[in-house]
Parts: sequence; structure tokens; C-alpha cells
Amino acid sequence: MRRGLQGLAPREVHAWCTTWAEIEPPNALTEHWRGPDHTAFQGTTLDYFRFTTDALLGCFLAEKDAIRAHDPDTPVTTNFMGMYRPLDYHRWAPHLDFASWDSYPPLDAPPTWPALAHDLMRGLKGGAPFWLMEQTPSTTACRDVNPLRRPGELRLATFQAVAHGADAALYFQMRASRGACEKYHGAVIGHASRDDTRVFREVADLGRELELLGDASLGARTPARTALVFDWDSWWALEISDGPSRLVRYQDTVHAYYRAAREAGADVDVIPQTADLTPYDVVLAPALHMIKGDLAARLEAVAARGGTVLTTFLSGRVDEHDRAFLTDVPGPLAPLMGIRIDEWDSRAPEFVQTVPELGAEARLVFEIVQPRGAEPVATYGTDFYAGTPAVTRNRFGEGEGEGEGWYVATALDQPGVDHVVRRILARHHLLGPYADQPGLESATRVAPDGTGLLFLLNHTTDPAHLTAHATATDLLTGKRVEQGEPLTLDPLGTAILRMQ
Amino acid sequence: MRRGLQGLAPREVHAWCTTWAEIEPPNALTEHWRGPDHTAFQGTTLDYFRFTTDALLGCFLAEKDAIRAHDPDTPVTTNFMGMYRPLDYHRWAPHLDFASWDSYPPLDAPPTWPALAHDLMRGLKGGAPFWLMEQTPSTTACRDVNPLRRPGELRLATFQAVAHGADAALYFQMRASRGACEKYHGAVIGHASRDDTRVFREVADLGRELELLGDASLGARTPARTALVFDWDSWWALEISDGPSRLVRYQDTVHAYYRAAREAGADVDVIPQTADLTPYDVVLAPALHMIKGDLAARLEAVAARGGTVLTTFLSGRVDEHDRAFLTDVPGPLAPLMGIRIDEWDSRAPEFVQTVPELGAEARLVFEIVQPRGAEPVATYGTDFYAGTPAVTRNRFGEGEGEGEGWYVATALDQPGVDHVVRRILARHHLLGPYADQPGLESATRVAPDGTGLLFLLNHTTDPAHLTAHATATDLLTGKRVEQGEPLTLDPLGTAILRMQ
Amino acid sequence: MRRGLQGLAPREVHAWCTTWAEIEPPNALTEHWRGPDHTAFQGTTLDYFRFTTDALLGCFLAEKDAIRAHDPDTPVTTNFMGMYRPLDYHRWAPHLDFASWDSYPPLDAPPTWPALAHDLMRGLKGGAPFWLMEQTPSTTACRDVNPLRRPGELRLATFQAVAHGADAALYFQMRASRGACEKYHGAVIGHASRDDTRVFREVADLGRELELLGDASLGARTPARTALVFDWDSWWALEISDGPSRLVRYQDTVHAYYRAAREAGADVDVIPQTADLTPYDVVLAPALHMIKGDLAARLEAVAARGGTVLTTFLSGRVDEHDRAFLTDVPGPLAPLMGIRIDEWDSRAPEFVQTVPELGAEARLVFEIVQPRGAEPVATYGTDFYAGTPAVTRNRFGEGEGEGEGWYVATALDQPGVDHVVRRILARHHLLGPYADQPGLESATRVAPDGTGLLFLLNHTTDPAHLTAHATATDLLTGKRVEQGEPLTLDPLGTAILRMQ
Repeated sequence: MRRGLQGLAPREVHAWCTTWAEIEPPNALTEHWRGPDHTAFQGTTLDYFRFTTDALLGCFLAEKDAIRAHDPDTPVTTNFMGMYRPLDYHRWAPHLDFASWDSYPPLDAPPTWPALAHDLMRGLKGGAPFWLMEQTPSTTACRDVNPLRRPGELRLATFQAVAHGADAALYFQMRASRGACEKYHGAVIGHASRDDTRVFREVADLGRELELLGDASLGARTPARTALVFDWDSWWALEISDGPSRLVRYQDTVHAYYRAAREAGADVDVIPQTADLTPYDVVLAPALHMIKGDLAARLEAVAARGGTVLTTFLSGRVDEHDRAFLTDVPGPLAPLMGIRIDEWDSRAPEFVQTVPELGAEARLVFEIVQPRGAEPVATYGTDFYAGTPAVTRNRFGEGEGEGEGWYVATALDQPGVDHVVRRILARHHLLGPYADQPGLESATRVAPDGTGLLFLLNHTTDPAHLTAHATATDLLTGKRVEQGEPLTLDPLGTAILRMQ
Repeated sequence: MRRGLQGLAPREVHAWCTTWAEIEPPNALTEHWRGPDHTAFQGTTLDYFRFTTDALLGCFLAEKDAIRAHDPDTPVTTNFMGMYRPLDYHRWAPHLDFASWDSYPPLDAPPTWPALAHDLMRGLKGGAPFWLMEQTPSTTACRDVNPLRRPGELRLATFQAVAHGADAALYFQMRASRGACEKYHGAVIGHASRDDTRVFREVADLGRELELLGDASLGARTPARTALVFDWDSWWALEISDGPSRLVRYQDTVHAYYRAAREAGADVDVIPQTADLTPYDVVLAPALHMIKGDLAARLEAVAARGGTVLTTFLSGRVDEHDRAFLTDVPGPLAPLMGIRIDEWDSRAPEFVQTVPELGAEARLVFEIVQPRGAEPVATYGTDFYAGTPAVTRNRFGEGEGEGEGWYVATALDQPGVDHVVRRILARHHLLGPYADQPGLESATRVAPDGTGLLFLLNHTTDPAHLTAHATATDLLTGKRVEQGEPLTLDPLGTAILRMQ
Repeated sequence: MRRGLQGLAPREVHAWCTTWAEIEPPNALTEHWRGPDHTAFQGTTLDYFRFTTDALLGCFLAEKDAIRAHDPDTPVTTNFMGMYRPLDYHRWAPHLDFASWDSYPPLDAPPTWPALAHDLMRGLKGGAPFWLMEQTPSTTACRDVNPLRRPGELRLATFQAVAHGADAALYFQMRASRGACEKYHGAVIGHASRDDTRVFREVADLGRELELLGDASLGARTPARTALVFDWDSWWALEISDGPSRLVRYQDTVHAYYRAAREAGADVDVIPQTADLTPYDVVLAPALHMIKGDLAARLEAVAARGGTVLTTFLSGRVDEHDRAFLTDVPGPLAPLMGIRIDEWDSRAPEFVQTVPELGAEARLVFEIVQPRGAEPVATYGTDFYAGTPAVTRNRFGEGEGEGEGWYVATALDQPGVDHVVRRILARHHLLGPYADQPGLESATRVAPDGTGLLFLLNHTTDPAHLTAHATATDLLTGKRVEQGEPLTLDPLGTAILRMQ
């Protein structure tokens, strides 16, 4: 649809109000708005978030139009920011020629955090490679504290981006700004213009290695059989909701399941609700608060052909207008999950609920599940709902095609999530060969010519001693390793194995 | 007085300024206003709070007028919110036909917190019964965390309301809202319209019990001989004051004394400064920062006829315009208290002052008391004012009519407050029969026909094993219990005893 | 320069923009301003701070002009507030006839905190005596908690002011305000108008002692050989900087070095960047983020004549327009320091770096120093830069005139700073005679007639047992003490020794 300079077609303005002057941004007088997560009229605020996304997209399209008027061919992109709440990138994605983004992971984020963002960005264009448009060669400047990237960390982060689908890895900034907010942001070349600094040397060395890799990974795709559904509408609706708990964070919840799958060695596509689900054996849909379109039927189809669908507490609650479904929770997901939920408890973060069958702890939200076909996998250990299910499994479909619907009714800790996700992956033979090696990330790409590339990334500061699970050649060293031979990765080291 | 739509009579506007346009709401440029407790011109801010109360009352009166134009008889009320700082309900009370309020106690509040609010609401109309207009049948939604009411908690809270004077107990909400901020607020009937939920069953069961109770408690009144003075002006003046401590909270201070009296078994009326004091043997006036009208003389009259008056630190400081009294602290209360105060210390919350005679601790504010007739009851244990009085008692009046004025110069912990209050109640034989049973609340109502009702409420999750202090019939079970017989209450259980 | 009522000469308006209406105060839309320390365009914000200083100075000058029109002689001052970030008092100082200020030290500040402010105020007029225009006789009122000044604290604080150059010590307030924000601020005379209070008595006693002192200290000056450079521009630039750490506080950093020097017994002048450095053997310039004019050359001159210059992490970074120097860090100070810095690490406040040679800890910022002539004095104990210098010393100049440049590359704890500063002071024989007596402050003033006065201030609540290091007469007691004799100070006691 062709859009005007202001980012909205006239009929969209009409859907809001009669004239531009009548648009009220969220504030205390309109919807008791007291900050990004605090509103009394969630539906209105949700629409404003969608409007903001569309309005800024309109600006992008106006700029793209200006380019296209003179240059019909050069690919156009813009630098996204990974999991960025203000903008629903799924609404932007069709308008970019390829995806690109800036990676500045939060301090102390585990390696799966930027990995999730990489996979989300790759998912924007149906799995096509993306560009890492910005990363710092040494420090950020915008944070309260801005640690250095230690020796080797830049290299590892760059190869991780390539492992997840980056076909280019750029820096911000080449040369240190002289003033303003990026004066102390890391730079390949500092204020003194030296080429004899540690940072310059690491960048130059990495460039040489990428040259060695050549075009081996260009255009390669990730052959994931596991999908994770990521949904901005659910993110917004969940976090602006009044009740049951303002402390549940969408990113944290989604990341816990992504992390479990990735650390178990599964390649994961991070996809929108509208994505084709037929390529996947496992679909993880944590905290999928809003269910849109025919998603529920398509999830049922996954299970009906033998796949597994997992969802969690606070899923299946609202329709696209943030209205509660007038059925048992979890709404349209209830048949697939085989459960009914009437009540949910919410507690202060210091309260810990035990889940004895998993040896795990749970926090924040505790839905009280009544099985309606599902079997309990694990139960709550305390409180008046002790003994009721915390995790359930529902067999769905028939015979050969029988699949499973898993429901996790509470915010399990990471070991609890790991337990559940690994059990699901094992059923589909999706556990990776190095699933039990701590801090070892593996990721697969398949080049356009069908060559398989296995990236092994050692996120620890100790050497990783592995046994090669297949015969392969390391593209960075040229060395061949036979199946069953020892394979050692340096601290923070990377191997890129071309499979035979 | 007849008020216009804007809630102010013309002469009140004149008291502020010449025209409406000249009214400046509190802000950084007028009075260095930096939030509800932070102003540099307290008198101005205080007047604004009074103006706000009156302006909103004007809206209420306009609506009531519209009703009265068509319906001269139906009682009119509005749902108050208990201890709600923004509005001085004592200024509204004359204009309501009966009081009603919404009870949503803070998380982890002890049972005496909503009880204080009930008694405050009952006090609005001179002790007449009120309505509990709203309570949640299960959870709230507006808070960061919103725990479920556990099984039995709704029942207990409802009978507690009745025990304190409620003649009706309603719910919010009957049916779950589909959207917006109350989407996840508790409802008698949830989104799925079921009548087979735990919450529906508890509500239905409670309805049957209230039917059993019938009209036995309707119109009944509380025969309190203890009063607690609650004063919005003091609340406002104390909390917006610069110095001595921004950490003293009016509600916490008042609640500590209320709790001590209630847990000792005394029925308590919570009254405004203007209330008739003649029914009371004991008047508790904690943190009574502002003294208005002839209150000091009426408090002296209580003591002069043998009663006891207690007040605390930061009482008797300012007149109705928030101007300091130009006399020794505690101002007009000084003769009754028999003390003089020149100085007061204030310390960070982690500083603990000992009060050895009470085995208690004190915090925040430490007034340095010089007895002028009073005798020390307890002293400070440390610092340069060690050995000076922390609590004093002053004999006031003569002979048979000799009463007492008690002064507590610091924020004692609850055991310290309990000690002081129980000593006062004991002097007047006001300790209840179950004063030493932890978590057991007793409350009395006298029906219009003179029948005495004793409510026993077990706020613990263990059974309460009591000995009946009198012969009575439990209206909920129909069972009769003889004086001296065992009387057991279930966990969270209630007995409503009709005394013989 | 003659200024208009609005505080800016016309050409200054022009330097900003064309018309007044075009001046935008810092906000989210201009420079992403999110509070006093949070901006994205530091140079713009810095200019706004300078503008604010000048604009308010214009108001002062307009008032002064009005006085001067009628009274050409009476000295004019205004009450400053010590280390007050919003106003660069060095820009105001030429326009005052003498300096004066209000001392309300933060709660729990060590005695060196107000001392630093005294010395900063004395430095405004080249070391001339100042007035202590306000101090509370008992409590403040503006803080969350407002402790009493304990018995003796007012006296000690007053003599400390005199010791640092005050020729007058006044109170706020004489009589307690009846209302508003200073109603509970301490007063010589309270609301009850009594003269028999502890506070009144302490004030009266102190008055009698000041009468005993007479004019002995009037006009006296401090013979400091140690200077500390204090610079509002560096304060602003450092604290609004994005990166490396928002947690570094200019005052804390400067105070640590001031404290070390003062507790070692050195008199210290606190001076602007423009001050004449020739009187000083030691120049401490911690956190001197911005280097203006010919300062670097003048610091080199100090070392070239045998003196010692110390600077620290985050010094020598930007020019007067907040632009990074396009040379090795620390910019113009690099030759004097004999080092080169390419990188700096920043860590969360809970991270502790060890500095083994000093037995000290360091936090927040860790610059990685490459010696270019300097010798390491102490090194980092951990992390990938373990073993690289944390403190360096560079010999500068030649032969007899050889001085030293010291660089401290991290935020050492106080023992670490003490170690470094005492080593520097010892080289110049500037350690005081009571440097090892905890809590004992000594300060020197030289009267206009050349008489030396040594102030000894016991900041502890225990007696201080000293040995007189010289023969002298205590002006407060009239007692003479011979060199080598015992000299005892009461808890919180003061001696003012006239040296023989």
C-alpha cells in the first residue's frame, strides 16, 4: 500500500478519529498513562504502539521512495535493534530488501541473548541472511558502566553473528567521534589515530580470518526444525496489562525457552505468528498472550502431524483487540493443551514455589490448571493448590500422527525450562551432539550448494575438549578432523566445520 | 451551604484570588512542589488539598442535586476508599445519606488495617452502619503483584466488615470485564461464564450464610468506649512538612495505636477532631499534628472526668493554618501532658534507639522531653539524651475525677505501643476476654433491640481454641455454648455469638 | 562589562542564536536531555550550564548596580553554597567584594567535606578571608531525616570555619519561622521564645569564646604550599559524559585527594585552573577532565622547578569545547605524566580490582596505562590487564629542578589515595606534626602582623592526647604549652595556638 509522508493512509487516520488534531498521545488524562508499562486502557495504548510502528514505517517508506525514484536496484535496509519493544519489526519486514541490525547486548547477558536477536532478525525475511550493521569493537558509551570487550570477545561475537545468518559484520565506529554522546564509544581507530592499539589489531586479525572464510557461508540458511514464536503484540499486551503480575517480562520468558533449545543444540527459527509452520517438528510459543488469525488451528495442525507445541502461563488470553476470550483459559489453545484454567495466583518475586518433579523453582505467576485430557508432568509443591499441575502434556491427534501439546503454567527457573524443553527435543531427536558441553554453542548453516557448515563457539574462558561427531574440515585452520577424534577449542574459540 | 457546579461558593474563590484564572495548581514554580509530600510552602499546599476535597465534593453535590430533583427519598452515597489521602472524607460525610466504601487492603496488611478503615468509615456518620460497596472475590489487577484470596479469606474479610458495622457487602466485579484495566480483576463470574469455579462456589456459600444471619446485625451499632482521633489535616500537614522526618507516615503511626487497642480486645470508634468525646473513657490521638478549635479543652475534659488521653511525637505542633504554635511543644496539649519539648532528634531508619523499661525499640524521631508535672514511664537508652523520657504519664484533674495524659515521644515499635496501650486500657477495664489469643479478633455490635452480638474472627490458619467467656448462641451454626465451655474456631473461621 | 537586566550582553545572545525566542533549554527534543547528568549532546548542555551561570550572575550584577548607585562603599556579597554544581562560582568571584557561603554538610560527611568547601570559598578571592553566612544552630529541615547537632558540634564546626579562613560566622535562623519549609529548621530562638534552651546556651557560650578570640584571626591567611585544582567545567563535562562510567562523581574524586592531604596535615588551597601556581610545591589535579588555556604548560613548570603534580583517570580528555584531544590520553598532560593510554575499562560498582603494591582496592574505571618514560608505582592485580600500571610516577625536568608527575589511573579507595598523597607530601616535607592522630585536624593561619595561628580540632568524641610540637599559647584558655609537653583536647574540642 502506498503511504503518504506522514506514515498513514487517509483511511487509517479515519480509523482513529476525524482529524490529526484529535489524536491524543497516551497521557495521564487520556488513558491514565503513567509510563511504558502502565496504562488503564490497554486496548487504546496497544493501538498507539501499532500507530507508532506504522507512523515511523511511513517515514522509512518515504525515504525509500526517494531512493527508488533514482535507483531502482540497490538493496535498501535500515538498522534495526533486535528485540526492540517500540517497533514491531514484523510490520516493517516486507518493506526492507534485506534485514540488518545493531547488536549491543545488555551487560551480563548470556550468549543466547544476542543469538535470539540474530535469529529474530533472520526470521524477518523468512530465514534469509542479514547484516550485522553495527557492533562496538571495544566499549559502549551510553550505559552507566561500559566494560571493555576483553581480548577475543569481539571475534567470538562476530563469528556468532555469522553462525546465525549474518553475511556481513560491520563496526560502529570506524573512527572515534570527537564530541557528543559517542565520544567514548569504542572505535576501530581512536582519537590519536593509531594503528598499533589492541583494538585495531584485533579488528585487523579478524578481517584476515573472514577473508579465509571467503564466501563459504554467504547465502547459507539455517535448517531449523524448531521454531519459537515471537510476537510484538503479545509483548505489548502482556507488559501493559493490569494483572496478574507487572513483573513478568516477555523477553525474559521467551529467552528462557530459546536458551533451553539452543543450549541443547537445536537450531531455532524465531518466527511471527503468521509464519508457515509446516517446516517445524517443535513449535515453542511461550507467553503468547494474544492469539491472532488462524494460529490456533495451525498449531493444532503441527501436533496433528506428530509435532510438539509448547505454550506457557499467560498465553491464549486475548484476541487481536486485547479483549479476553470468553472461554476457558487458555482460550483457542485450550483444546490443543487439554486443560482448563479458572484461576491464577501471583506473588512477590521473593516467593518461591517448588516443583518437585523437576527439582525446579517457580516464581511470579502460578496458574491453577485442571486437566481436561492432559496428563500432569509436574505439580506445585506448596500452597493451597499444592499437587495441582504446573506442567502438563496432552496427546493430540491419532495413531502415527499423534503429537503433543505442552503447557507450563508458571515461570519455571532455567533448570526447569531446560528439563521440559530437552524432553520435547529428545522426542524429535533434536538434541545436538554437544548438548552437555557447558558454554559450547553449535549452529548449522547450509550453503546454497548444499554444503553443511557447523559453527562451534566456545563461550567460556577455558579450552573446550570435544570429540568430533562427524568428519569435517575447519575452514579457519584448514585442518581436517575425523569423526571420533578429539577436537579442542581455545578459550573463546571458534571452529567452522565444513561437513564431509 | 449550597454550592455551585465547581464546588466552591463565590466567597471561597475570593479567599484564594480574584479570578479562577489566577489559581495555580501546586508546581515547581509556585511552591517548589516536587510531588505529593514535597513542597516548600506547606500552608499553600495544604489549602490546595482542602480545595481539591471541596472541588470534588462540589461535583458529587451537583450529581446528588440532579438525583434529588427527581427522587427525594432514595438514599445517596458514593464509594469511598477508606484511608484515602487525597480527600478529607470528614468534609464529605454530612452530604452522604450513608457511608460506603471499597476495601482493597494493601498486600500483607495485618487484619487491623482494613478494620481501621471500616471503623473510620463507620465514624463518618456518627457510628451508623455502612456498606462495603466493593471488594474483590479473588484478585486485584492494579498492583504489581496480585495474589489470590485463598480459600476462606473472602468469607473472613466479609464477616470482618459486618463485625465492624457493614450492613451490606457487595463485590466488584460480578462478571469479568472483557478489556482494559479490570480484565484480570477478580469476578464472581469469569470470562467463561462458569458457575462451577472455586470463586463462584465461595461466593454462593457465603450468600447462604449471610441469609442465615438474616437481619440480626442490621442497624446494630458498636458500643465503643475507646476513641481514636483521625484527622486528614494532620495527615496532610505531617507528611508534607519539611522536617523533622519525611519518613514518618501518618497511617503507620495511627495504625500502630489502633492495632494495639483492637488486638487487646477494645472496640474503637475512629472519629474526627470535632466529634463528641463524652462517650469515651480512652481517647488515642497519635500524630495529631494540627489542633483545631476547642479540641485541647475537650481532651482536658476527658481527663478531668477520669479518662485517659494519649498523644505522641509530632502532635500539637500547628494551628489550622499550619502555623507553629508560639509556645512550648506540644502546644495546646502541653498542660494536659505536663511536659515541655525544646528539641527533637531525627535519624535514618536503620538507627535503633532502645527504650529499656518497655523492652522496646524506637525509630525515626526522638523528641527530648522535659517533665513539667508528668512522670517518666520509660526513657531513651542511648545517645546524649539517654535517660530522658520517651514516654510520660501526667495525672490531670483531681480526686475521683483524676485522669491521665500520656505522651509517647518517639516512634515505638509495635510491642512498645502494645505495652503502653494495654496499660491504659487495663486502667479502664477495657481489655477484652481474648486479648492474649494471637490472631483472634473480637468485635461487638448491639442490635437496635439491645441484643449484643460478639463477632469472633480467627485470622490464623490454625484452629483457635478458646473458652467461652459468656453463654451465647452462634448465629451461623445455631449452636449454644455455655460460659466456661470450650469454643473452637476453624482456621480463618468466624463465630457470631448472640449473647444471652 | 556592563550587563543588561537579563544577564547577557547583546553579543552573547548573538553567540547563541538570533533572538531570545530561539533559545531552547535542554530537553528531550533538543539534546535528548533526561536529567542533569543525562544528555546526548554534551557540548550543548555544557554551554547551557555556562549560560545559566552567566544569566544568574547578570541578576546579581543588576542588584549590585542598584546598590552601588546609592552606596559606593559597603562591601557586597551573596551567599554561595560551597560545592554547588549549578553555578560556576569562579565566574562569579571577581564580582563579589568578599566571599560568603552557607554550610549545610551532607549527613555523615566527614569533616573534610565542609573543609573542602571552606577552602574552595577562600580560593574564590585569592585566599582572602570569607564569611560563613549561614549554618544551623541545631537541625536542618529540608532533608528526609534531620538529625540534631549534638552538644559541642556547633562549636567545633564554627571553629573549623574560622580555621579555614572565616572572619565571621552567622546563623540561620535567629528565630524559628512560624510556617513553611523552615518551620522546623533549627533556630537560636525557638517558637516559644525561650533563652533557657540547650541551643540558645551553646550559641551564647560560643559567642563568649569568639569574643575571647577577638581580632586575633581577622584578616589572617592560609600559608598553603599544596594546591588542589577545582574546576566546574571538568565537573560538568565529566558527569554529563556518556561513557566510560556514569558512576564516577567529581566531588567524591576530588574530595578523596583533598582529604588525604588534609588528614596528613597539609594546608591546601583550592584553586581554579587559572590560578597562579608558583606558590605551590604540590599541585593535585584529580579528575581534571577539561584542560583549558596554558594550564598544561604551567603544570609542567611546577614540576620543572622541582614540584610534584598529580592527576588521575579521566583527566586531560577534552578541550574547552568538550572536544576530545586528538592525541594519546591524557592529552596535554601526557608529556608531564610520561604515559600513553589507549583503552579504559569500566565496571559495575560491586566489582573490586586489587592494587597489591598499595594494599588497596579500586573501582569503577580502570585505564590501561602504557609507560612512556614513567615508572610503575603500583599495578592492577587482576583481569586481562593485570600487571599493568595503576599508578605511575614520571621524573620531569633536570638536576636540582627535577620534579615529578604522578598519574593514578583508577578510583583507588581512600587508603590507596592516602598512600599516594602522603608519599608525595613527604617528599616536600609537608606532612603535619599530627598526621597520625586519627580525627585530629590541624590548620594554619597567619595574621596580618605575621603571627602564626595553629588550629587543632578534635573531630572525635574521645579526648585527643597530643604532644605539643612547638611552644604556643591557647587563645581560648590563655594557657601556655611548651614544646614537647602533653597537650590534650576535649572530645570535639578545639585549641587555637598562637605560635611563639
